[in-house]
Amino acid sequence: MSTTAPAGFRAAGVTAGLKPSGRPDVALVVNDGPLDVLAAVFTSNRCKANPVLWSEVVARTGRGRAVVLNSGGANCYTGPQGFAATHRTAERTAELLGCGAGEVLVCSTGLIGEQLDAERLLAGVDAAAGALSAEGGDDAAVAVMTTDTVPKTSVVERDGWSCGGMAKGAGMLAPALATMLVVLTTDAVVEPADADAALRAATAATFDRLDSDGCQSTNDTVALLASGASGVRVGAEELAAALRPLCADLASQLLSDAEGSEHDVAITVRGAASEADALEVARSVARSNLFKAAVFGRDPNWGRVMAAVGTTSAAFDPAVLDVSFNGVAVCRDGAVGEPRSLVDLSARDVEVVVDLKAGPEEATVWTNDLTHAYVHENSAYST
Amino acid sequence: MSTTAPAGFRAAGVTAGLKPSGRPDVALVVNDGPLDVLAAVFTSNRCKANPVLWSEVVARTGRGRAVVLNSGGANCYTGPQGFAATHRTAERTAELLGCGAGEVLVCSTGLIGEQLDAERLLAGVDAAAGALSAEGGDDAAVAVMTTDTVPKTSVVERDGWSCGGMAKGAGMLAPALATMLVVLTTDAVVEPADADAALRAATAATFDRLDSDGCQSTNDTVALLASGASGVRVGAEELAAALRPLCADLASQLLSDAEGSEHDVAITVRGAASEADALEVARSVARSNLFKAAVFGRDPNWGRVMAAVGTTSAAFDPAVLDVSFNGVAVCRDGAVGEPRSLVDLSARDVEVVVDLKAGPEEATVWTNDLTHAYVHENSAYST
Repeated sequence: MSTTAPAGFRAAGVTAGLKPSGRPDVALVVNDGPLDVLAAVFTSNRCKANPVLWSEVVARTGRGRAVVLNSGGANCYTGPQGFAATHRTAERTAELLGCGAGEVLVCSTGLIGEQLDAERLLAGVDAAAGALSAEGGDDAAVAVMTTDTVPKTSVVERDGWSCGGMAKGAGMLAPALATMLVVLTTDAVVEPADADAALRAATAATFDRLDSDGCQSTNDTVALLASGASGVRVGAEELAAALRPLCADLASQLLSDAEGSEHDVAITVRGAASEADALEVARSVARSNLFKAAVFGRDPNWGRVMAAVGTTSAAFDPAVLDVSFNGVAVCRDGAVGEPRSLVDLSARDVEVVVDLKAGPEEATVWTNDLTHAYVHENSAYST
Repeated sequence: MSTTAPAGFRAAGVTAGLKPSGRPDVALVVNDGPLDVLAAVFTSNRCKANPVLWSEVVARTGRGRAVVLNSGGANCYTGPQGFAATHRTAERTAELLGCGAGEVLVCSTGLIGEQLDAERLLAGVDAAAGALSAEGGDDAAVAVMTTDTVPKTSVVERDGWSCGGMAKGAGMLAPALATMLVVLTTDAVVEPADADAALRAATAATFDRLDSDGCQSTNDTVALLASGASGVRVGAEELAAALRPLCADLASQLLSDAEGSEHDVAITVRGAASEADALEVARSVARSNLFKAAVFGRDPNWGRVMAAVGTTSAAFDPAVLDVSFNGVAVCRDGAVGEPRSLVDLSARDVEVVVDLKAGPEEATVWTNDLTHAYVHENSAYST
C-alpha cells in the first residue's frame, strides 16, 4: 500500500510514454488532508536538476498538496526550457487538484542533459490525476522505477496512525546518481516544524549513510506529506521514531537492489573520538574501490581497509587499530591477527568493524561491492 | 638505462624468492658519488608501511648512498617483526656497501599484512650487491614490478649532465595502493635543499596529479639520488625543469599500464578562481565511478561530469558551466550543447575539459576508466 497506507492519501502511476520501454513513468501522490503539511530534503549537489530548484522553493513553505514524479528523464541541465517543463507540470497538477502550483512538489529521474517531452508529461499528469485512488500507492511505486528491478515500499503502523513510503533508486546512493526519490506519508497530526525535524533526523541516520558508489545525484529528493487524517497528534520525536524504521527499511531495499551488487556491506567504526570521525572513516572505507572489489572477490583484504582509514583526518593511532570481517579479528593492534582464511564472505551481508580506540563514538555506513555487473550497467547504459 | 644512465650510479635486480612467481624481486640502486645527496617524498597515508617509517627518517638527513627495494611483500602492518626486517635490510646493505644503515633508503611493495621472509630478503640483498653494475638500471626496473606488465624507465639528457629514473605501479595511484615506487638519479652537482625543492616541484605537477582509482597506498615513495659525477652544478629550478619531464614520462607510463584500463583520461579544469579549485574539481571528476564507467562504455556522459563538479566547494555558477569531450562542447552554459553523437571515445586517450568561468587558473588530473578488467584484477588477486 506504500504511500496510501495512511489515511488521507490517494496515488496513481501511469504510462506517459517518456520511457522507450513503454513502462509506467508518471506517479502522483496527493494529500487530501485535512492537513497539508510538507517537509522535504534534497541533494546537497550544487548542480541541481530543475525539479529540485522548483521543489526547494515549495518545501520552504512547509505546506504542500501533492508530489508529482516522472521517470524517463532527469530534467537536469536542460536550461530555461527544462525549468518551464517543471513549472508547467506543477501548474497542470495544481489545476487538476484545485490547489496552487506552489503546493506541488515535482521530482524527475532519468538521463541528465536531455529535454523531457513536456506534452507527453502533461498528458501523463492528466491521466494520473484521473487514476488517483486510495489504493494507488503500489502503482505509484512502480512508475518511479528506472534501473530498479523491484518497487520499494514500506509501512510502519502505530497506535491509531501510520506512516507509508515508496522509494526508487538502484543504488548509486550518496545519496547519488540514478537518483534516489522517496515519498513518505503519514496521517498523524503534526506541526510543519516537527515534520521537518523528524524527517531530517530520520534521513540523517538512514539514507544519508547509504553510500553505494560515492556518487551524488543532481535530483535526490525525500518528501514527507502529513494529512492529519488519523486525528492523532504526534511530536517531532515520536514521528522521527516511526520514520526511522520506515526509512531504514526503504534504504535497505535500495541497497539490496543496487546496480550489479552482490554484497551489502555494513562498515561500522567504533572507538571514535566523535561521531563525525566515525562517519569520515566509515565513508572512506565505503568509497575505496580496492576494498569494494576485494569484497566482490570474497577476499577479507584488511590492508585495503587500513589504507582507506589512513587517508582520513580522524583521531587514531595506526599502531593500535583493530579490523574485523564478519566477526573475525583479522587485524589486531595494527598487526596481523586471526588468519584471513577463517573469514567467509560468501553470504550477501558483510560486516566490517574498525576500532579506532580513540573514544566512545561509533557510526555505520552501508555500501555495496564493486562488481563486473556494476561496470556493465554503468558503461553500457546512459543514466 | 634507467637509474644508471647518469654517471656515478650502479644498480642490480635479482631474484630472492619473495614472489611465488619466481620473478626478480630485489633491486638495489647505489650512488657512488662523489656526492651523496638524497631527497624523497612519501605517501601522505597515515597508515604507513615499515619501510616508509624507516625511510622518512633517513631522508630527513638529505644524504644517502643507496635505495634497496623489494617486491613480493609490502611489509605494512607487520608490527615490530616487520620493522626489524626493514632495519636489517638497511644494515645488511650498508655493511655490503661500506656505509651506515642511516644512509640506506628501503622500499617494499606487495600484499599488506603479511610478514616478509627476512632471510630470503637478506640473501637477495647479498646477491644484488654482488650483481651491481653501471648497466644494471634496467634489471632493477624489472625487479620492482608487481602487477606491472612492463618495466617503466626514462632518461632526460641535459648539457653535460642527465637524469634517469625507474617506476613501478600498475595504476591505482593517488599516489595509491599497489604502491608507486620511483627512484630518480642525476649526476648533477646539487645542494640537498635544492634537490628536495626540485623533487617536490616535479612530483607535485606529475605523480601527485595521477589519480587512477582514488586509493592511496601505504608504501608510496619517490626518491632522488644525486651523485655530482658530471661536475655540472645546477640550481633547484634547473633541476626541477629536468625532473618534470622525467616524472611526467614515468607517470604517463604508469597510467598507460594501470590495471585493466582501456582509456587514459586527462581532465582539465579551466577558468578556476584558484589552482586549488581547479584541482579539487578535476579530482572529483577523476574519482567518479559513474564517469569512469561511462568512459569505458565510450559514452560522453557529461551529466556525470556535472554531478561530480557539483559535489565540490570550488567557486562556480552551475548555470554557466561548459564541458567538452575530445573537443566537442557537449555542454554549453549549463545546458545541452553539441550532440553527444559527435564524440568519438574509441581511442585510448580521452580529454575532458570543464570550464568553470570563475577565474584564470587551471589544472589537469589524469585518470583511467573503470573496466571489467579492473574489477577482475582487484577482486581475483590480493594486493
